[in-house]
Amino acid sequence: MTRSFTPPARVLLGPGPSDVPARVLLAMARPTIGHLDPAFIAMMEEVKALLQYAFQTRNGATFPISAPGSAGMEACLANLVEPGEVVVVCRNGVFGGRMGDLVGRLGGVPVFVDSPFGEAVDPDQVASALKAHKDARLVACVHAETSTGVLSDVRAIAQVAHAHGALVAVDAVTALGGVPLAVDEWELDAVYAGTQKCLSCPPGLAPLTFNERALAKVRARSHKTASWFLDLNLLMGYWGAGGRTYHHTAPINMLYALHEALVMLEEEGLEASWARHRVMHERFVAGIEALGLDMAVAPAIRLPQLNSVSVPSGVDEARVRRRLLEEWGIEIGAGLGELAGRVWRIGLMGAGSNVRNVNLCLDALRAALAG
Amino acid sequence: MTRSFTPPARVLLGPGPSDVPARVLLAMARPTIGHLDPAFIAMMEEVKALLQYAFQTRNGATFPISAPGSAGMEACLANLVEPGEVVVVCRNGVFGGRMGDLVGRLGGVPVFVDSPFGEAVDPDQVASALKAHKDARLVACVHAETSTGVLSDVRAIAQVAHAHGALVAVDAVTALGGVPLAVDEWELDAVYAGTQKCLSCPPGLAPLTFNERALAKVRARSHKTASWFLDLNLLMGYWGAGGRTYHHTAPINMLYALHEALVMLEEEGLEASWARHRVMHERFVAGIEALGLDMAVAPAIRLPQLNSVSVPSGVDEARVRRRLLEEWGIEIGAGLGELAGRVWRIGLMGAGSNVRNVNLCLDALRAALAG
Repeated sequence: MTRSFTPPARVLLGPGPSDVPARVLLAMARPTIGHLDPAFIAMMEEVKALLQYAFQTRNGATFPISAPGSAGMEACLANLVEPGEVVVVCRNGVFGGRMGDLVGRLGGVPVFVDSPFGEAVDPDQVASALKAHKDARLVACVHAETSTGVLSDVRAIAQVAHAHGALVAVDAVTALGGVPLAVDEWELDAVYAGTQKCLSCPPGLAPLTFNERALAKVRARSHKTASWFLDLNLLMGYWGAGGRTYHHTAPINMLYALHEALVMLEEEGLEASWARHRVMHERFVAGIEALGLDMAVAPAIRLPQLNSVSVPSGVDEARVRRRLLEEWGIEIGAGLGELAGRVWRIGLMGAGSNVRNVNLCLDALRAALAG
Repeated sequence: MTRSFTPPARVLLGPGPSDVPARVLLAMARPTIGHLDPAFIAMMEEVKALLQYAFQTRNGATFPISAPGSAGMEACLANLVEPGEVVVVCRNGVFGGRMGDLVGRLGGVPVFVDSPFGEAVDPDQVASALKAHKDARLVACVHAETSTGVLSDVRAIAQVAHAHGALVAVDAVTALGGVPLAVDEWELDAVYAGTQKCLSCPPGLAPLTFNERALAKVRARSHKTASWFLDLNLLMGYWGAGGRTYHHTAPINMLYALHEALVMLEEEGLEASWARHRVMHERFVAGIEALGLDMAVAPAIRLPQLNSVSVPSGVDEARVRRRLLEEWGIEIGAGLGELAGRVWRIGLMGAGSNVRNVNLCLDALRAALAG
């Protein structure tokens, strides 16, 4: 007979998931009700309003996709890309590369704007790509690259895209709640996020928002999107204003968790959450430098919620991670792609971005590096 | 400020979700850990083994898709259907129709085998369709049609498909755990299910199993599937044997819930679970007939876990459902599609299939129909 699973005690300081507060875990454990129950539908409306706050948008089409962040990427692109369309894809990490793969699967033609891993997307290069590909109707980029710890200026990228008649689709999986993001003010057309980073919620949902320009492109499609599950025309009937048309069965308890996590964000205040991530990051960086270690990313483009720390030469990076996990219960992340073996990725995300974790992580690193 | 959400007390006797036992809810509330944590990876292996038991298969490719049942349908078809391929789609309810829509979105050509809503799929009609469309390489059908309460003989359909050189893809969303299903013995090539029906787990995951024939078709694809999120070639790297290759972030806490629900299924025993669903169904039917009501589906093809009861003429069916919800806290389902307004769909699924619920539902129906 298989036994019930009891997870080990961990402190999640990797690239996500981040630690989930007891309030959110307990919200998730409330009894499941039906997805067409009037009480549940009222809660869905609150989730939409809370997500509008988190995204800083009035977009009516703002709701969570019923699957993790990767499905948010897929929902975004599967609705916006039609076969044969050229899409400018900004690639300065793993997730930009994934967007390009997906554009190709959808029958689109990705044109990459490449920056080295560890650097931000250059809006001038995006402009050049749009000049060279006048038929491009979409620019896809990542706000907070989880694979490198780099912040790109998606507002500037959106301005460039719009100047060339293209829409912009933004990956805000790691950004939402952790760094300033203003969907309406910055005129971002389509944005998706995740729950397991700075929202302090378990993984499993992907908040999404589309503005009117993006919705108009979806409504004017000449081919139905290949995905029934992610078709925004159908999802709007389920999540949109007015009567609910049955689509899929929403992940009820995950939505309880997201609701509670967003209530907590509203209680703290979005600006206060951004400021907390910033202050804890500065405290962490000071500690890292005091240990004689270097941050891998330039100060101006560092993500406060995901800190890439250079592995000193001669240090076995996997051994350090293993010691942190086994001796301290601390999970930190390895480098991905070009940065594999060269950095540790240390997340200070959501509720996990606090003084106790900063101190704990620095103490543990000091001990592990001492041998 | 938005307040925390507290769901109303409900007894879920609709088409799903079904009531979730406290054991499963509390398992879901255990602290989130990382999806690459050795302890989590060990739990994933147990989930796979428990799903093999539930599906009665030795297929290595047996794991849950990280999204609800509809995404299971999509994972199944998006991997098995290539552009231009003919697929015989058995349609005796809403979910067969959805499969046909999806085949079309994927560039396939659906050929429908239609049966009236409320009747089972006729294997002879499937044989005729395969004779008329010799290029068909796949038959898609629903084991337990949630929209009508009808069981089809998927074993016979699989035999017909194989005799004509086609594979069979089976929707077992409502079937798994509630009625006999033997993937290997019946030679079902690709099967997907849901968690929120007879497994007594919240919605949000879709157990899936592919045999070697189905995997060979996926490996031999000439086009990558349109979905990155659901690409089985990538998912096998994440869930398959050997090292874990990062794909998406699994919905950790939902997987805790599924693990616990499957441990409970193993403790009860699959045959015992099937028998309990059967016995409670018989008790329920006897009570319905004692109330002077009629079952809408012929006895031989009735689903024990989803009972379609005919609405008597002159009765306002929506008012009865509303009274059950408001006065008794009981959720039952309305008819879907052709059966809208004509039946109630009463679920006795998973842990909810018990004497207390049968008696409660019959009492409530008696009271609501009395005026």
